[in-house]
Amino acid sequence: MQSYSVEHLQQMVSNAIALLPVYKEPSGLYEPISYTMNQGGKRLRPLLTLVAAQMFGGNPERALPAATAIEIFHNFTLLHDDIIDQAPLRRGAETVYKKWNINTAILSGDTMFAIAYGQLSASDPELLPGLMDVFTRTAIEVCEGQQYDIDFETTESVSLEEYITMIRLKTAVLLAASLKIGAIIGGASTEEAGHIYAFGENIGIAFQLQDDYLDAFGDERTFGKKTGGDIVVNKKTYLYLKALQNASEAGKHELQAIYSGSISDPAEKVGRVLDIFVRNGVQESTRDIIASYYNKGMESLKKIRLKPEALEPLMKLISGMLDRKF
Amino acid sequence: MQSYSVEHLQQMVSNAIALLPVYKEPSGLYEPISYTMNQGGKRLRPLLTLVAAQMFGGNPERALPAATAIEIFHNFTLLHDDIIDQAPLRRGAETVYKKWNINTAILSGDTMFAIAYGQLSASDPELLPGLMDVFTRTAIEVCEGQQYDIDFETTESVSLEEYITMIRLKTAVLLAASLKIGAIIGGASTEEAGHIYAFGENIGIAFQLQDDYLDAFGDERTFGKKTGGDIVVNKKTYLYLKALQNASEAGKHELQAIYSGSISDPAEKVGRVLDIFVRNGVQESTRDIIASYYNKGMESLKKIRLKPEALEPLMKLISGMLDRKF
Repeated sequence: MQSYSVEHLQQMVSNAIALLPVYKEPSGLYEPISYTMNQGGKRLRPLLTLVAAQMFGGNPERALPAATAIEIFHNFTLLHDDIIDQAPLRRGAETVYKKWNINTAILSGDTMFAIAYGQLSASDPELLPGLMDVFTRTAIEVCEGQQYDIDFETTESVSLEEYITMIRLKTAVLLAASLKIGAIIGGASTEEAGHIYAFGENIGIAFQLQDDYLDAFGDERTFGKKTGGDIVVNKKTYLYLKALQNASEAGKHELQAIYSGSISDPAEKVGRVLDIFVRNGVQESTRDIIASYYNKGMESLKKIRLKPEALEPLMKLISGMLDRKF
Repeated sequence: MQSYSVEHLQQMVSNAIALLPVYKEPSGLYEPISYTMNQGGKRLRPLLTLVAAQMFGGNPERALPAATAIEIFHNFTLLHDDIIDQAPLRRGAETVYKKWNINTAILSGDTMFAIAYGQLSASDPELLPGLMDVFTRTAIEVCEGQQYDIDFETTESVSLEEYITMIRLKTAVLLAASLKIGAIIGGASTEEAGHIYAFGENIGIAFQLQDDYLDAFGDERTFGKKTGGDIVVNKKTYLYLKALQNASEAGKHELQAIYSGSISDPAEKVGRVLDIFVRNGVQESTRDIIASYYNKGMESLKKIRLKPEALEPLMKLISGMLDRKF
């Protein structure tokens, strides 16, 4: 069986997305969908699906409908999340609700969710019930994660555990499901599919924690966006919650005061918060927990008995996700 | 094979909906879902599914997951439509976006859409690909119908044909799909499933046209809501479009002027528009077209060779939908 490179699989994903039948009437419904799907993005999730399918000896072509379904689903959640988060920009372009309006972003998003299921159901009929299970459970969990994220904005005290649950649901489970769905299509056993899911879940949590870390301590040139953004909008990230836990009473009160608006200048605010983070060992704690989730993920992966060369494309993708790091 | 009464099937639907696992955390996500699903409503669509399954000799129990899926889907569309239409009330209670907020109505709605698919996939695995096809195509069409409805608000001239397309997509296809999905589960042939779909589609169009008619000319006691609502909000219904077509140039201009705000008093406005409708034979035209879609539907039904007693529950449901009429 021929093995495709990550680049080749990436091309397969791009082609499949370019061929989606989303250039129809009514244009008020489909234009925002084409706009969104053509904006690119890393296509990380469908790539994980194809890579996983190939890893277990399957033909990645057969995983393409499911991979496309996952990418459309992911983009649908962005359309609705951008309304909820009032985000004006996404991938450097205006978000749908800004470019059009809230109603358009709602309805075009709904349509994308249905189109995603339409793609999924083009998978092997025998596998469809199992794939539907993973896909639907994941879709529900992603909504739950988004709800926790909304709730946390107005929750006085969020525990580190609750925070991890939130990012697990909002971010990690979709990465895990992307791998598991590919694995099922590729012919993995139930046990193997479970291991690859656990791998994806833990790597996904590490990935999101790394994003928190880089938003505070990243190199702006490699991070790709301005650092300090989370602090400016008072986001209760892992770093913030860890600082509250580690700090003295005085430090805790200072940090909470800053997050309540005691410093109006953004640059000064970011500098002051980073200083509190550093003084309270938040950098080391966060690096440690990222490493711990990464290692937990790798342990699950090791339980799958595959030759190292079969794992190469997956490891390449994962290091691309996690190596922007330190 | 035992045949259940419509009342018994209705009880089955109520029980299934009461048992839905939607009382979970995070409560900010699931409370609006329980609130919506517990509000009742006629449960017409899932009933059509069970009735169709039974009609073709199937056990309606087996159609229950799909029937529930359709009801959840329908309620999801209401959550999002109420945001789009800025509707404060639904079934006499506050709409979700009013009682909570827009973000909640978006996210709880999305979750309902996923839960609907989760229910659907509890259907017979062998039938699942076919059921998914009908369900997903219908979901997309319902979104298209809603988009056309939005578009028509700002479209200068909407043709009668375009209007029928809109109500077909927004309302009729879901009734048709409810029947078709039940028929498939009940063991109907592809041809029979096609006939029952055509029946539902035409009856659905008749049903929506009747709603337009009753909103203008209905008896408020039997119609159940205040008449004239469509006219007050300048809705381009079949009656309005037909009046434009039938009226003289002067009548047409008068009607357009009224819909542009020339009469501010609502009661006077409704009276004046009704007068134009009556003078231009709109009552008869609308009754005629309702009858024509009804007859078209009945012709499709006749192509299915079933004993009259097998059709009884369906005819009872349909006459309940259409007999409030004249």
